[in-house]
Amino acid sequence: MGSAMAKVFADGGHDVRLWGTWLDDPMLEPCERGDEHPRLKLKLGKLSFYRAARLADALAGAELVVSAVSSDGVVPVWTKAASLVPDVPVLSPTKGFLVARSGKMARVDQTVAEVAGRHVHYVHASGPAKAIEIARNVPTLMTFAGAAASVCAKAMAAPHIHISTTADIAGAEVCSALKNAYATGLGIWDGLLGADSHNARAAWFTQAIDEMSRVVVAAGGHIETAYGGAGVGDLHVTAAAGRNRLFGEHIGRGKPAKAVAEELAAIGQLTEGYPAIKSAWQYTRELGVERLPLLKALYEIVWENKPVDETVKKVVLTV
Amino acid sequence: MGSAMAKVFADGGHDVRLWGTWLDDPMLEPCERGDEHPRLKLKLGKLSFYRAARLADALAGAELVVSAVSSDGVVPVWTKAASLVPDVPVLSPTKGFLVARSGKMARVDQTVAEVAGRHVHYVHASGPAKAIEIARNVPTLMTFAGAAASVCAKAMAAPHIHISTTADIAGAEVCSALKNAYATGLGIWDGLLGADSHNARAAWFTQAIDEMSRVVVAAGGHIETAYGGAGVGDLHVTAAAGRNRLFGEHIGRGKPAKAVAEELAAIGQLTEGYPAIKSAWQYTRELGVERLPLLKALYEIVWENKPVDETVKKVVLTV
Repeated sequence: MGSAMAKVFADGGHDVRLWGTWLDDPMLEPCERGDEHPRLKLKLGKLSFYRAARLADALAGAELVVSAVSSDGVVPVWTKAASLVPDVPVLSPTKGFLVARSGKMARVDQTVAEVAGRHVHYVHASGPAKAIEIARNVPTLMTFAGAAASVCAKAMAAPHIHISTTADIAGAEVCSALKNAYATGLGIWDGLLGADSHNARAAWFTQAIDEMSRVVVAAGGHIETAYGGAGVGDLHVTAAAGRNRLFGEHIGRGKPAKAVAEELAAIGQLTEGYPAIKSAWQYTRELGVERLPLLKALYEIVWENKPVDETVKKVVLTV
Repeated sequence: MGSAMAKVFADGGHDVRLWGTWLDDPMLEPCERGDEHPRLKLKLGKLSFYRAARLADALAGAELVVSAVSSDGVVPVWTKAASLVPDVPVLSPTKGFLVARSGKMARVDQTVAEVAGRHVHYVHASGPAKAIEIARNVPTLMTFAGAAASVCAKAMAAPHIHISTTADIAGAEVCSALKNAYATGLGIWDGLLGADSHNARAAWFTQAIDEMSRVVVAAGGHIETAYGGAGVGDLHVTAAAGRNRLFGEHIGRGKPAKAVAEELAAIGQLTEGYPAIKSAWQYTRELGVERLPLLKALYEIVWENKPVDETVKKVVLTV
């Protein structure tokens, strides 16, 4: 997603520096040579590339920083970057809940502020937006959430992207963190009943939005956020395609979740849904949100090996 | 849908009489012989069949009436049936807007009451529920709306169906009428950009829910109805599969809507989306609902032959 966003900024005439951790070397190398980006399958355009060691150079004098690390990368990367990031807006598509120093689960913006030890002008970028389609100029809606959302929206302006903005960073981050979990559930129906289970999938989708809206409110967000792009929209795109849906499909066929996650990881398909279900369940337990039967069922199936069939059927029919 | 609901009632132990208009003879005939229902591809179970002329017999002493005619059939069928329908709950999945005697567009329940010339205990049955999957026991969520919703929900109780009830008949009927229109729009993206247009489809889905919620409120309904099964859920199932999506896909490839509707009709695929877009646009004009760029774009493409590409791209990117 970082590369796709970098392309959009570069196409918009900005001077873009794309920095990667040492894990990103295989991705940066062809780009440096002017070849296609290995995942996006297209050339990124006019931008500069920075390997892991050159973090300070990449950040020096930046007017806006895009922080597109995975949720696992937030603490290690921000530990290095915090003192180097200028006092400018930070736009981040990173999603998930992270363990704070207190031992409790926190949102990504809260974790970044804790690691940085200061206020960060953090803006969360949520979908519905698949990276590869952003890069390929498919018409896309995004939602930016945070005090500096409008500044970031103006900076990332592009003919194919419409960005709506909100101050509700809590709501938007909660939606982004939860959608991978619920998308896994949609995939479970495919695996369990096959393609002709539209009714069951639509029931799950409806109830997932209902649960998301209640977690959003419990987290101090606005309920409308769950009904907009960050909620309804992003769950739609995540459930229609992608690894979390596939992860769910395998589970629906009766395979244990841990085995599925390992198999998919072995072919380079990391499934965010797997850890997302655990951290979302923990986050909502700490927040004391009641009546989340779908999330509970996902947790029980994926992390406690409960039988998939009766567990998902029961919740869809009793909510 | 009438046959699928009849099967559920019969499986639930009710004494069910399935009546059909003369148009339904080819459907009733194999059922009368004990063969499979030609569309649902399964046997309906223990129920009695009534041909068109036996309407009075079919309705005599009924404790609950299911009115599952198409929107075109509402006025002709209710003109015949009104004096024969007992003073019992009427459960109806019929969706759409109809022309009232005043010449203005009205909801189905309003039209039924006008034709009957009396109060009807009308309950609207909305999805997300494909008929064939209801008949095949796929887990399904339904929403019944109206004063007698709970009575109807109790009567149609089945192990695979969860029915939520609401008094908001206006909101639920508006959602049901609009979903065929907006589902057509989702199909347009498939035709226009191919399968890899998830972002555009999710943007459209999000904005469609937003428009639906505003029409619901303007019609005197509750905004929550648009965010539940009748809105989010039913648009999800309609957009994922079905004729309206297919209708949109052909239009997205650049074929004029009228020609597509005629071609599909010739192979027995009537597309409700075609007239639904016109009647929905007219209904919202009469109601004075502003800011419906998606519905306006659909009307312009389908009924005024505006170029599909720029019309849909513009609205998704400017909402």
